[in-house]
Amino acid sequence: MEVKVPSDIEIAQQAKMKPIADLAMEWGIEDEELEMYGKYKAKISLDILNRLKEKEDGKLVLVTAISPTPAGEGKSTTTVGLGQALNKIGKKAVIALREPSLGPVFGVKGGAAGGGYAQVVPMEDINLHFTGDMHAITTANNLLSAAIDNHINHGNQLNIDARQIVWKRVLDMNDRALRDVVVGLGGKANGFVRQDGFMITVASEVMAVLCLSTSLMDMKERFGRMVVAYTYEGKPVTAKDLGVHGAMTMLMKDAIKPNLVQTLENTPALVHGGPFANIAHGCNSILATRLGLKLGEYLITEAGFGADLGAEKFLNIKCRYGGLKPAAVVVVATIRALKMHGGVKKTDLASENLQALDKGFANLAKQVENIRKFGLPVMVAVNKFVSDTEAEIELLIKKCKEYGVDVALNECWGRGGEGGVDMAHTLVNLIEREESSYKPLYDMEASIPEKVNTIVREIYGGNGAVFSPKAQKEIKKLEELGLDKLPICMAKTQYSLSDNPELLGAPSGFDITVKEVRVSAGAGFIVCLTGDIMTMPGLPKVPAANNIDIDENGKITGLF
Amino acid sequence: MEVKVPSDIEIAQQAKMKPIADLAMEWGIEDEELEMYGKYKAKISLDILNRLKEKEDGKLVLVTAISPTPAGEGKSTTTVGLGQALNKIGKKAVIALREPSLGPVFGVKGGAAGGGYAQVVPMEDINLHFTGDMHAITTANNLLSAAIDNHINHGNQLNIDARQIVWKRVLDMNDRALRDVVVGLGGKANGFVRQDGFMITVASEVMAVLCLSTSLMDMKERFGRMVVAYTYEGKPVTAKDLGVHGAMTMLMKDAIKPNLVQTLENTPALVHGGPFANIAHGCNSILATRLGLKLGEYLITEAGFGADLGAEKFLNIKCRYGGLKPAAVVVVATIRALKMHGGVKKTDLASENLQALDKGFANLAKQVENIRKFGLPVMVAVNKFVSDTEAEIELLIKKCKEYGVDVALNECWGRGGEGGVDMAHTLVNLIEREESSYKPLYDMEASIPEKVNTIVREIYGGNGAVFSPKAQKEIKKLEELGLDKLPICMAKTQYSLSDNPELLGAPSGFDITVKEVRVSAGAGFIVCLTGDIMTMPGLPKVPAANNIDIDENGKITGLF
Repeated sequence: MEVKVPSDIEIAQQAKMKPIADLAMEWGIEDEELEMYGKYKAKISLDILNRLKEKEDGKLVLVTAISPTPAGEGKSTTTVGLGQALNKIGKKAVIALREPSLGPVFGVKGGAAGGGYAQVVPMEDINLHFTGDMHAITTANNLLSAAIDNHINHGNQLNIDARQIVWKRVLDMNDRALRDVVVGLGGKANGFVRQDGFMITVASEVMAVLCLSTSLMDMKERFGRMVVAYTYEGKPVTAKDLGVHGAMTMLMKDAIKPNLVQTLENTPALVHGGPFANIAHGCNSILATRLGLKLGEYLITEAGFGADLGAEKFLNIKCRYGGLKPAAVVVVATIRALKMHGGVKKTDLASENLQALDKGFANLAKQVENIRKFGLPVMVAVNKFVSDTEAEIELLIKKCKEYGVDVALNECWGRGGEGGVDMAHTLVNLIEREESSYKPLYDMEASIPEKVNTIVREIYGGNGAVFSPKAQKEIKKLEELGLDKLPICMAKTQYSLSDNPELLGAPSGFDITVKEVRVSAGAGFIVCLTGDIMTMPGLPKVPAANNIDIDENGKITGLF
Repeated sequence: MEVKVPSDIEIAQQAKMKPIADLAMEWGIEDEELEMYGKYKAKISLDILNRLKEKEDGKLVLVTAISPTPAGEGKSTTTVGLGQALNKIGKKAVIALREPSLGPVFGVKGGAAGGGYAQVVPMEDINLHFTGDMHAITTANNLLSAAIDNHINHGNQLNIDARQIVWKRVLDMNDRALRDVVVGLGGKANGFVRQDGFMITVASEVMAVLCLSTSLMDMKERFGRMVVAYTYEGKPVTAKDLGVHGAMTMLMKDAIKPNLVQTLENTPALVHGGPFANIAHGCNSILATRLGLKLGEYLITEAGFGADLGAEKFLNIKCRYGGLKPAAVVVVATIRALKMHGGVKKTDLASENLQALDKGFANLAKQVENIRKFGLPVMVAVNKFVSDTEAEIELLIKKCKEYGVDVALNECWGRGGEGGVDMAHTLVNLIEREESSYKPLYDMEASIPEKVNTIVREIYGGNGAVFSPKAQKEIKKLEELGLDKLPICMAKTQYSLSDNPELLGAPSGFDITVKEVRVSAGAGFIVCLTGDIMTMPGLPKVPAANNIDIDENGKITGLF
């Protein structure tokens, strides 16, 4: 019964990849729409969206999950596996994933392109420089930073209050020493001294804009609207005021084009854009999703963290801006994680525990219920681990059926697409049986507190939101500036439906405290922070970098 | 007589480029050795050097110049034009250039890929992200920085003295605010507070290593040797001590491969690596040069600044490490610049001034003399400007002939390769007539003061070098560490043969003051600084970025 699966990198290095030009041709991408980056990666020109304008869209399927635990869920593995499985049963499916940041590669070992026999390849390239999107974002972000300090240095005509610069520099690196810095030291020639900080590139609003833009010109408009500072009079200063939104857009002219790679079974994979899932919305780009809908009968995509964060933002932010209408949602669960939601410690996961599984099911039930509030058909995919017992699997399937939700096992990690055939059939049946009546959960025109309260009550299952005095002041300011009629981007712990990471399962009777409110006016959402969000990771005592090597043949070791 | 030439970007945007795969095939590059980056850029696998090991090398020709003035010389334009002209007269010529930094693109308008009808294309791509080499260097450099602070944060087992960290962070951006910074603020979680600074990426030793490496493993060795800090006992701490030289090499696995593009006339152009010409050696990569020698009968390349800096380093550092033997050197001069060397102000250059030209010739004569000290055949290329008068041209040619050096006009800027036919013939004749007896100017085993004095006396025409007390102390330390038996990399003003930028022409009777001595142990040279070298440029009051824009068709305006 137990499957012997080699390590991710061993599997990836043995993959039989198709030349990406061949794959593109098979899926209807024309030669002049393809820009090669080596033999197995390509960017796709946005012109294709115009050419295929009249073609009917495929079915949009979101893969989301229960609240994550240290036991792992396998959302990417499910997304990749489901795409492979759909193709196996004769459906044309494309997948769309977020692209990984380089920083974490050197921190704690672990890739970001699926796992086992459900991976996206060429895995090493995707996890390293890939097609340069991250570097373009870093450069565009930091050009804007340089423009701010340069403007102040040359007379500060815009009257920028250096104490109220909200735009930070970024680097695609885990580097704690850069979290809080002082810049401009060294005398007159180096400008004015001020406090600043670096975030990791994926935390940049430039990344969020990339992912929510619907065209190059839409991107330029969004860059122009980004608020970088406030004047002494409290007026927002934008990238457009500094005159560099055009140059930033030029820097992003290739980054805006979706990247095409493939899964281990040659399913087309669009890997494009990867914003933070707390201070941003945590989904791949709208353009990649739209492209995938034109290329396939099904487009399978995912969103960061559990459904309370990832799916909520996908459905309230991304689908709204992208004019997207999902056909169904897959909620990924693992028996291990549900047992943790039921009170089991990580060290005790190997033993069968039906009681804990029964109790932990509440988290899954709540996430399923939430998806239905958006008017969407939903199914559960159980990502099978070798430690799961027959009795546990049986119980989970029984509970799903009792709850009235379709369920299927996902064995793609160990068996590739073949291990997801049942899951694929379940999904196809669900979509054919149930019509999507998707609608966002709240009206954008509602006040910030109204929108936040809707999310807290409907999605998290809490009593309501409490706003700190600081947050109240910030809300008032956004209302005065007319910047409050935007969707909400909650920055909350991913580990609980509440804002307390210790409250697993499906807690109730809690309040959510919003400590801080910021606007990402270019991306087009209001970030509500319920705690401190780390936007620049550090390296561990022995970083993964110290085990990475490359030999004279270019063979990499120690990476994943 | 006057030629009407459109702007560089207009010419570049109208170029008839060959698909780079076709060009590569014509020049004997095999399909599996080519990695496409779009249709007009490619990287070439280093495997080709092994395949062509037995093939005879082409002739290596260096293009260098008189001491630069604000009037401009046109070294890149001459390099590109000469390559085009050689192909026009039936010789197979390849060119090799440095790749430009992104930072300056947003500062003062001006590209770095030749000009007029002697340009390398696709010019916009080359000046923007190109194939990602700069970004790879930035990342590798900053991984090492993060490793230093991370090591100290986690207990500082190597006993690094935080006051003696010599490794800086980098960004490919003109950003004066980052020259002097304090990092690690914000409390215990963010590490130890210390002073730091950012340089522009091209100033990184990682760039110099890229350009001096002869293989991937040689690069890894060199990264490992780089000195990043000293311990409290004064012992050097290297990248290898920190254990990240393998990961850095992995990050550079694609950057090490030469980039292939083309000129406006489809001459192959290897544009690869671009280190600073003061604190580093200012030449494109050894690997690109070696590759070009295998592909063409002639490989035309250039070095930064005037011959006293660029050619001297090319001949004493790059050729030594690369096992290269140049066949000839072309010294570029313009009548405008020679008149400035003769005392004319920039505003008065439009008027004929034979007396100033006659006087300014001394700088050209000295640079020619210097080349001969290396045992090399040399010719002068006069880069023609529309303002040059017949009498001026006649005088300059007469003076060259009197001096005993071959001379030809370069009219490639206005006429492409056709305008360099005479120059190409002159070069071919020179090489056929005169045998190169190239040898470096000094013995690496000599002491640092001996080596510096040789350069000052033989090349600059000065009395000798004076070492500040600080420099003397540093020399002593390098001698103790056994790091003094390396070539010298002079960091001196490019505007004068002396260390005083005001002394134009061919000054004599001066001393050179070495204020500071540093080792770049990975690159493999000792940097002798004669003044403050700016390693992080700033932006002007109205940066070029503010005029750059891109429209809905992706057409860029305001860039060059």
